[in-house]
Amino acid sequence: MSAPRRTLSELAEHVGGSVVGDGGVEIQRVASIEEAGAGDITFLAHPRYRAHLAACQASAIIVGPDLPEELPGVSRRNFLRVRQPYTAFAEILNLFSPQPQYDGRVSPQASIDPSAVLGDDVTVFPYVYVGKGVKVGRGTVLFPGVFLGDGVEVGEECRLHPQVTVREGCRVGNRVILHAGVVIGSDGFGYAGEGRERMKIPQVGIVEIEDDVEIGANTTIDRATLGRTIIRRGAKIDNLVQIAHNVVVGEDSIIAAQTGIAGSTRIGREVILAGQVGVVNHIEIGDRARIGPKSGIPRSVPPGALLSGAVAAAPHHEWIKVMTLLPNLAKLWSDVRRLERKVAELARRSGKGVKGHARRKGDL
Amino acid sequence: MSAPRRTLSELAEHVGGSVVGDGGVEIQRVASIEEAGAGDITFLAHPRYRAHLAACQASAIIVGPDLPEELPGVSRRNFLRVRQPYTAFAEILNLFSPQPQYDGRVSPQASIDPSAVLGDDVTVFPYVYVGKGVKVGRGTVLFPGVFLGDGVEVGEECRLHPQVTVREGCRVGNRVILHAGVVIGSDGFGYAGEGRERMKIPQVGIVEIEDDVEIGANTTIDRATLGRTIIRRGAKIDNLVQIAHNVVVGEDSIIAAQTGIAGSTRIGREVILAGQVGVVNHIEIGDRARIGPKSGIPRSVPPGALLSGAVAAAPHHEWIKVMTLLPNLAKLWSDVRRLERKVAELARRSGKGVKGHARRKGDL
Amino acid sequence: MSAPRRTLSELAEHVGGSVVGDGGVEIQRVASIEEAGAGDITFLAHPRYRAHLAACQASAIIVGPDLPEELPGVSRRNFLRVRQPYTAFAEILNLFSPQPQYDGRVSPQASIDPSAVLGDDVTVFPYVYVGKGVKVGRGTVLFPGVFLGDGVEVGEECRLHPQVTVREGCRVGNRVILHAGVVIGSDGFGYAGEGRERMKIPQVGIVEIEDDVEIGANTTIDRATLGRTIIRRGAKIDNLVQIAHNVVVGEDSIIAAQTGIAGSTRIGREVILAGQVGVVNHIEIGDRARIGPKSGIPRSVPPGALLSGAVAAAPHHEWIKVMTLLPNLAKLWSDVRRLERKVAELARRSGKGVKGHARRKGDL
Repeated sequence: MSAPRRTLSELAEHVGGSVVGDGGVEIQRVASIEEAGAGDITFLAHPRYRAHLAACQASAIIVGPDLPEELPGVSRRNFLRVRQPYTAFAEILNLFSPQPQYDGRVSPQASIDPSAVLGDDVTVFPYVYVGKGVKVGRGTVLFPGVFLGDGVEVGEECRLHPQVTVREGCRVGNRVILHAGVVIGSDGFGYAGEGRERMKIPQVGIVEIEDDVEIGANTTIDRATLGRTIIRRGAKIDNLVQIAHNVVVGEDSIIAAQTGIAGSTRIGREVILAGQVGVVNHIEIGDRARIGPKSGIPRSVPPGALLSGAVAAAPHHEWIKVMTLLPNLAKLWSDVRRLERKVAELARRSGKGVKGHARRKGDL
Repeated sequence: MSAPRRTLSELAEHVGGSVVGDGGVEIQRVASIEEAGAGDITFLAHPRYRAHLAACQASAIIVGPDLPEELPGVSRRNFLRVRQPYTAFAEILNLFSPQPQYDGRVSPQASIDPSAVLGDDVTVFPYVYVGKGVKVGRGTVLFPGVFLGDGVEVGEECRLHPQVTVREGCRVGNRVILHAGVVIGSDGFGYAGEGRERMKIPQVGIVEIEDDVEIGANTTIDRATLGRTIIRRGAKIDNLVQIAHNVVVGEDSIIAAQTGIAGSTRIGREVILAGQVGVVNHIEIGDRARIGPKSGIPRSVPPGALLSGAVAAAPHHEWIKVMTLLPNLAKLWSDVRRLERKVAELARRSGKGVKGHARRKGDL
Repeated sequence: MSAPRRTLSELAEHVGGSVVGDGGVEIQRVASIEEAGAGDITFLAHPRYRAHLAACQASAIIVGPDLPEELPGVSRRNFLRVRQPYTAFAEILNLFSPQPQYDGRVSPQASIDPSAVLGDDVTVFPYVYVGKGVKVGRGTVLFPGVFLGDGVEVGEECRLHPQVTVREGCRVGNRVILHAGVVIGSDGFGYAGEGRERMKIPQVGIVEIEDDVEIGANTTIDRATLGRTIIRRGAKIDNLVQIAHNVVVGEDSIIAAQTGIAGSTRIGREVILAGQVGVVNHIEIGDRARIGPKSGIPRSVPPGALLSGAVAAAPHHEWIKVMTLLPNLAKLWSDVRRLERKVAELARRSGKGVKGHARRKGDL
C-alpha cells in the first residue's frame, strides 16, 4: 500500500486553511519537526521546538494565524496556515494514516457461545472468549485474548485490544476503544464489618461505557455495588487509571495516567484530571474543573475551578530540612502570631515611651 | 431464575434485627436509595444521602439502632433496625444475589499438563494454561486466559478471573479471589552493581497467599528474592497495587488502590492503607495502624498509629506561591527565630529603659 | 535435578574473593540470614539485619572487605570476603539457580501467521498470537497469551511472560525480559480540539526497546505519535510504570514501581527514579540524576542532581493543622517580612532613643 500523495493546496482545502508559499508542493508524510525532510509536512507542536525551525527541511509547515514572520528564511518556506494547527495536524495525520483493515472474520480458535449475537463485519481473533447472550455491534474488532462475560453488550466499530476483560453484564457503546489489558467490571472494593468478621459486599451492579470513549492500557474500572459505574460519552481515560465502584465520569472529561477516583464520586463534564491525581469517595468535581498533576482532592470542587496540589521536588539536602520543619508549621504559625503581639506591645510601649518622653519633656 | 421474595420479617430474622412498621411487606431486591422503589429494600450508606430519604419509595429501609424519628413521614415507613446496618445490607444483598453457578467442566480448549491434579468440580475455561505438577483444589474456577506456572498450588473455592498470571511455584490458599489481570510471582526488582556492569539478581523465592484473600484487578505481587512474599489470611487488596519482593501483609489488612509497598517491608494485621500510599522498603507498619490516602511512609510506624500525609489541592494561583515558598521553609523558620531574639532584646532594652527610667526617676 | 554442591573455596574462586575460615565446607544453597542453616551461604543484605548474625547457622557468610571482627563467635565462622558482597551474592545465587530450560517447540495451539519468521530454539506456548511479518530471534520464549502485532520484531534470548502485548510495528532487542501483563505500543494519549469536537490524534509511531532491558508486570509503554518511544540498553523498569508517547529512557536507568513519565520527556543515562514519581511532559532529566520516591518533577533536572519531594506522613491530628495552614504559607511569609520591618523600625527607634538619651545625657 503506497503512501498517498497530496499537494499542499489539497491539504489546505481538506482542513480549511490557506497556503503561504508554493501550493503545488507534494506532501506524502507527516513528520516531527526534528525528522521532517522533503515531501513531509510538519508542525510546531510546542513553542520550545521553535529552535528546530531554522534547520527544518520539511516541504511545508502547519502554522497558526500568526505567521512567524521573523523566522530565518521564512520567505523561502511553504506554510499551511490554519485556525487550529493541532487539529489540522490531526486531520492530516488521519489522511496519511489510513485505518488498518480487518477481515470481518471470526477465528475458529475463538470461543463463542451459541447464544451470542455478532453484527456484520465483526472481526474476532483467536483466543477470544464470548459468553452467553453477548451482543457485539457491526464492525467491532476483538483482538486476541479478549474476554466478554455473560450478557455483555458491545456497540459498533469498537476496538477491544488484546487481553481486555469486560465482565458479565457490562455495556460498552459505539466507537469505544479499550486498550490492551483494560479491565471493565471487576468487583468494587467493598466490605462490611471488621477484622476476622469482615465480609465481602456482593458487587452486583455493572459498568456502562457510552459512545466515543477511549480507555488506556491496564486501566481498571470497577462495577457498581448496586446500579452503575458510568463513563459518559467522549470521556478519554489514560493508562493505569483506577475508577472505583459507582463513580460517574462526565462527558468529554479527560483523566490522565495513574489517576485514581474513589467510590461514588461524580466527575462533571469536560473536567481535566492530570496524572497521578487522587480523588476521595462520595464527592463531586464540577464541570470544566481542572486539577493539576499529583493533586489530592479531599472534598468537592466547584465548576470551573483550577486546582493544584503537587509539591515540586527540591535538592535532597534542602528538602530534608523542609520535611523536618513542615510538621511544625502550626508551631511556626503560632510563634509568628505571638511575635506579632509582642511587637505590637513593644511598638505601643515605644510609642508611649516617645509620648512619655514628650510628656516628660513637657514635665520639665 | 426469578428473584427470590422475602417478607421484611423474614429478612429481620435472617440478619438478627427487628421490624419497625409492616413486617409482612414483600421484598425482592436491594437497591440504592436514589433508585429504590416498591419491592425494594435500601439503606443509608452515608449520612450525606439522608436528603434522599424523604422522596424514597423503597418498601423498607435498613437503619441502625437510632431510628431517625425526625424524618418526614417516618411513621408511614417500614424499617429494618439492626446493630450494624452495613453488615445487614451485605447479608441481605448476598441473599438476593446468588453466586453464579459453574459447570465444573474442563474446557478441551484449555492446556493442562498431564501431571497437574485438579480437584472435584474445578471449572476450567478455554485458553487456560496449567503447568507441570500444578494442584487445584475443589470447586475452584479458572477463567479464560488464566496462567498457572509449573508447581503452582491453588486451594479450594477460588476464583481466578480472566488473564490472571500465577507464576511457577507460588501458592494460593482457599476461597481466594484474584481479579482480572492480577500478576502473582513476577520477578522482584533487584540488581547488583551499577551502570553497564549491573546484573539481575535471580528471584528464586515465591509468593504465598493465604485463605480468604481478595486481590484487585491488575495488581502485581512480586516473588521473593529468597524465601516468600506473604499475603496473610483475610487481607484485602484493591486494584493496581504494587507489592514488592519479600513483603509480608498481615491478617485482615486492607490496602486500597494504587498503593505501593517496597521490598521486605512488613505490614501488620488489621492495618489500613488508603489509596496511592507509598511505603519504603525494610520497615514495619504496626498492627491496626491506619494510613491516610497519598501518604508517603519513610520509616516504621507503631501499632495503632493514625497517620496522614496528603496535601489537599488548592486554587492554582495560590498554590504556585505556596510551592515557591515551601523550599524556603527552613529560611522562614530561622528568620522567625532571629526575630524572636531581636524582639526579646528589644523587650529587654525596653524593659531596661523602663527600669532605667525608673532608676533615673529614682536618681532624681 | 539435585542441587549442585560447591566448596566455599570454589565459590571464592568463582566470584574473585577470599575465604576466612574453612574453605572446604560444602555449600548447596543460598538462603536469607533468618533462614540459613547448615549447607547454606548467606549474606548481610542490610546493616539492620546484623542482629540476626549471632544466631545464624549458615555454613558461610558473604562479607565485604571489613570483616566484622567484633561479632560474637566470629572466629568459629566461615566467611567469603569480597569487594562487592551484593554482586557476589547475585553471582552465587545464579550458580545455584540454573535457568529453567525450554523445549524450543512451537505449540500447535499457538496462532502464528505464515509470514512470521521464528529463529532457532524459539519456544512458543499455547494461545500465543504472532501477526504478519513478525520476526522472533533465537532462543526467545513466548509464554501463554503473548500477543505480537503485525510487523513486530523481537530479538534473541528474550522472555515474554504471560499476557504480554507488543503492538504492531514495535521492536524489542536481545535478552529483553517483559513481565506478565506488560503492554508495549498502546496508543499515546493525544487529542486535538475541545469538548464534543475533540478528535483523536493517530498514534502512528512505535516503541523501540533496546538490548538487556527488563520491564515489570503490568507496566505500559505507549507508542509515539510520530517516530519512536525509546527504552535504551540496560534500562530496568519496575511494575505498573507508565511511559507516555515519545519518551526516551536512557541507558542503564532505573525506574521504580508506579512512576509515570509524561509525553516527550527525555530521561538521561544511569538516572534513578524511585517509586511513585511523576515527571511532566517535554522536559529532560539529566544523566545520573536521582529522584526520591513520590517526587513531582515539574521542570528539567540537571545531570547528577539529587532531588526529593515526598512529604512524610505525620500523626493525623497534627497533619490536619499543617494542611489547614499550608495554603496560607504565603501569608505567613509576608507576615514575617512585615514583622521584620516593624522590629527593625523599633530597633532603630530604640537605638535612637538610646542615642537620644545619650545625647540628652551629653546635653546635661
